[in-house]
Amino acid sequence: MALLHYPVYNKNLDIVVSSITTLDIHDIARIVRTYSLGKFYIVTPLKSQMELIKRLFRHWTDGYGALYNPTRKEALLKTDVVKSLEDVIKEVEGFHGKRPLLIATDAKRFPGSISYDKMIYSLSKKNQYILLFGTAWGIEKSIVTGTDFILEPIMGIDDYNHLPVRGAVAITLDRLFGRRNSHASESA
Amino acid sequence: MALLHYPVYNKNLDIVVSSITTLDIHDIARIVRTYSLGKFYIVTPLKSQMELIKRLFRHWTDGYGALYNPTRKEALLKTDVVKSLEDVIKEVEGFHGKRPLLIATDAKRFPGSISYDKMIYSLSKKNQYILLFGTAWGIEKSIVTGTDFILEPIMGIDDYNHLPVRGAVAITLDRLFGRRNSHASESA
Repeated sequence: MALLHYPVYNKNLDIVVSSITTLDIHDIARIVRTYSLGKFYIVTPLKSQMELIKRLFRHWTDGYGALYNPTRKEALLKTDVVKSLEDVIKEVEGFHGKRPLLIATDAKRFPGSISYDKMIYSLSKKNQYILLFGTAWGIEKSIVTGTDFILEPIMGIDDYNHLPVRGAVAITLDRLFGRRNSHASESA
Repeated sequence: MALLHYPVYNKNLDIVVSSITTLDIHDIARIVRTYSLGKFYIVTPLKSQMELIKRLFRHWTDGYGALYNPTRKEALLKTDVVKSLEDVIKEVEGFHGKRPLLIATDAKRFPGSISYDKMIYSLSKKNQYILLFGTAWGIEKSIVTGTDFILEPIMGIDDYNHLPVRGAVAITLDRLFGRRNSHASESA
């Protein structure tokens, strides 16, 4: 999974680099770990932001933080920061020798948007995938339309469609990878 | 829905009052609004924390924030802060003239834990419900076992079970109220 801080839109639909939110990193790392995805890539082209994240990793994986909060450490061990989506693609291709397929998420519906059920069916085939989420006002349009799959937006009950990215990641991973029908001991 | 800051456990399993996290409030308010729940109650017995939240509400619903971020305003209009779970129950009872049923969520499984499918079936009956989430290390045990329903924990792929409460709320509401099978126009 990759969380893009560039290229994304701001409120006025300019293409910008968004700032890292450290809570996003911790939350999303825990969610990615919960559903056992291979890796969580934070994508930003800004060197200063990359340095900030690396310092944060060191604190929580090697420093005092690792002792204080071991479940946070475990989540961050599968997290990395890279400078572009192309670098994520190259790394995954390097692991598996095959260019991964890209899945975009967006709060808007696109002409080719597919349902979660269709996506689950595709995921059952033996390919590598990168699931993309955007920060700020969403991923720049040509990136979205250039992917292999675009997931339909998460809709609630009516037309209010403003989930925080942390919430969208949680819901999307649960829909794609969650086990909804477990064998709970059930009361009457 | 109610988010409890008391009585909850800390890391050492002492019963404590946890601190308000303002980002929790904004995230959860957006998620609750997305799934059109009646109301989001933040529960804390601390007057200073209640005052902080009320100031935050004023900023985002009447102040400059309402103009700057109208979708945040809309989410917060259904949010309130109260001093105890008993006060939440009384208010909901006042709306509907009938004591609401309580649903607990917990990261641990309890003997009577029920599945999401069973819970969805119960929700289709004409009752009022309050869905409880705990902050910190979870809701004090006697509150959980005293509810009418305990939802089974959200499990991922293996035994890592440390979702942030923001993520747990998103997944739970989507499982109970989300529409997973929409009529998306689908590509091949």
